[in-house]
Amino acid sequence: MLERFKPRAEDQVVVKEKPLRTTVKAIFERLNCPPEDAEVAADALLSSDLRGVESHGVSNMLREYVRGYMDGQINPRPQIKVLRETPSTATIDADRGVGVITGPRCMQIAIQKAEQVGMGVVTAQNGGHLGMLAYHAMLALPHDMIGVCMGSATYGASVLPTWAREPRMGTNPIAIAVPAGKEAPFVFDVATSAVAGNKITLAKRVGALMEPGWVSDEQGNPIMEEAMLPQKYFGLPLGGTRELGSHKGYGLSVMVGIMSSVLSGAGLYPKTPRPPGHGAGYYNHYFAAYKIDAFTPVDQFKEQMDDYLRTLRTTPPAPGHERVFYAGLPEAEDERERRAHGIALHKEVIQWFRDICGELSIPFILV
Amino acid sequence: MLERFKPRAEDQVVVKEKPLRTTVKAIFERLNCPPEDAEVAADALLSSDLRGVESHGVSNMLREYVRGYMDGQINPRPQIKVLRETPSTATIDADRGVGVITGPRCMQIAIQKAEQVGMGVVTAQNGGHLGMLAYHAMLALPHDMIGVCMGSATYGASVLPTWAREPRMGTNPIAIAVPAGKEAPFVFDVATSAVAGNKITLAKRVGALMEPGWVSDEQGNPIMEEAMLPQKYFGLPLGGTRELGSHKGYGLSVMVGIMSSVLSGAGLYPKTPRPPGHGAGYYNHYFAAYKIDAFTPVDQFKEQMDDYLRTLRTTPPAPGHERVFYAGLPEAEDERERRAHGIALHKEVIQWFRDICGELSIPFILV
Repeated sequence: MLERFKPRAEDQVVVKEKPLRTTVKAIFERLNCPPEDAEVAADALLSSDLRGVESHGVSNMLREYVRGYMDGQINPRPQIKVLRETPSTATIDADRGVGVITGPRCMQIAIQKAEQVGMGVVTAQNGGHLGMLAYHAMLALPHDMIGVCMGSATYGASVLPTWAREPRMGTNPIAIAVPAGKEAPFVFDVATSAVAGNKITLAKRVGALMEPGWVSDEQGNPIMEEAMLPQKYFGLPLGGTRELGSHKGYGLSVMVGIMSSVLSGAGLYPKTPRPPGHGAGYYNHYFAAYKIDAFTPVDQFKEQMDDYLRTLRTTPPAPGHERVFYAGLPEAEDERERRAHGIALHKEVIQWFRDICGELSIPFILV
Repeated sequence: MLERFKPRAEDQVVVKEKPLRTTVKAIFERLNCPPEDAEVAADALLSSDLRGVESHGVSNMLREYVRGYMDGQINPRPQIKVLRETPSTATIDADRGVGVITGPRCMQIAIQKAEQVGMGVVTAQNGGHLGMLAYHAMLALPHDMIGVCMGSATYGASVLPTWAREPRMGTNPIAIAVPAGKEAPFVFDVATSAVAGNKITLAKRVGALMEPGWVSDEQGNPIMEEAMLPQKYFGLPLGGTRELGSHKGYGLSVMVGIMSSVLSGAGLYPKTPRPPGHGAGYYNHYFAAYKIDAFTPVDQFKEQMDDYLRTLRTTPPAPGHERVFYAGLPEAEDERERRAHGIALHKEVIQWFRDICGELSIPFILV
């Protein structure tokens, strides 16, 4: 997380993993989810917080999901349905379940197919928010597989194509997880926009300056100096401007949209108007599992991964920097730290937990 | 192509497609390639020039390949060998063939597997330069499939990880081609570095200024203003700086490295020292084919693609811009134009053709 966005220490309360997990699971159960689904959802959210990805953990997403269940947008008991299937592929109707519950089911199908024929690719339409995409991709790791996850929404847009003045993409994230031997696995999980939507929200909340190349003004002109967020703005694709490579971020974003929303049959910007509601049913997903042994011996693969990842993290740093990281390394370090010492939550989040536990008659055990 | 890099009109000679194709094919044949391979290689190179991707066509790459054949680096008669195989995957030894010849063979294997089981993924080690990656990805289009191609080298690096002062990646390109109905197909083909290596070479040649975020100085500090290329420099990952998202470009680049070089069994930065020679045998590839009908009805898919691509290209432009494009659209327009009116080559390239035709006893028929 960029330094300027870090909450102040005096606003934080450190909570242990176990009571937090118990509480989150109980909330999903009270919202009518089956216990096994509640456990998976809690695991996905906790995994985000443990890995330092607070934006997709209990602080932001859980309350979104609770609202979704309460107003009937999210189906607490989704019956996922196979719409089409081949030995290595499947297309799923996610039945308006939340992605943190239907995603792992889809990923398991991809893993089974990869186990049988080498590769498994599953697309899903009519789903909900996936939480941290890396969670789904990482489900492949214990099977000695590479996992991939992408997601996009059928409707709605916040990010501009290069040279455009109206948005045509979401933040369209992509994640890939690759096992290693002794090194922390390579786990890459990013929005294809210049900056994730929640960072803009966060900057707005704390009044921080935006970096150059993060957003445009209301006419689509990229803002290329440090500046306060304007009243009206749009997200820019990764790269910011054409000269800096925004056509690459734009293309990646469209690719994610196609692989999740079009390949699942949902479509992007269909002619039918957007139905009411805040999102469940409009998210579409892509999951893939690659069985490493189908391509190359697993031991050799892990050794080569270790060699490369070690080479990356021991690269001499440029002036002003202490270390070189690779994707997944800081998160693995955060996870070790937080499993041992607990997860820091904003005191306002603790209050929310106190309130929701009261409302749902769940014992409050966090502090 | 950025305006500043365009050659001056008086330096250009327009050549028709047919004699150029005949000449290129004859060159490969004289270099001991079988006629059917020579035809594929000529098609790959011509396709680049027709699509306006001069950097990967006859002007730059052909002479590299000719040199590679002449000094024995490239094998003119590669016998590609299947190292491992499952119903949906294969790993190939490309036998030091050039990628414009072995790539299409690998892609055909991926397409056959996708035809049979829904997906096909082929990795290849011990290969040569792929030319324009889009060429291989686009081979999937007539089969109503999505094609993907990636490539990276076992040795050598020119691009910095975020915060690093020594390079650890190549330009690690990725391409994806997706069929549409009436609209030009979505064809995305980019280096995961901020800028393709050949643009830097070109800037050096014509003395053009570099854009901010393209390269670093010799200590790894990103150069964030327009500047002449310094004596010693490194490429930056897409994004340029951490604040602008270079960790995303960096992660994408590592992903391409893993999927091509590690998944094919070649490895990245192995402990064995780099053998002598300029490259054939050090390139590794990834090819994938997705059978659309395995996921969703082909007609519906194409209709949804048309809808989305039309939405993108009719997006109102930001001030100072005339149109919004999508990846593959300018190239399709270039191709229509060039098939009708010919391909503009630099007069120095024409001279090279005159020389090499003389050397190889091929009739010179270009002008």
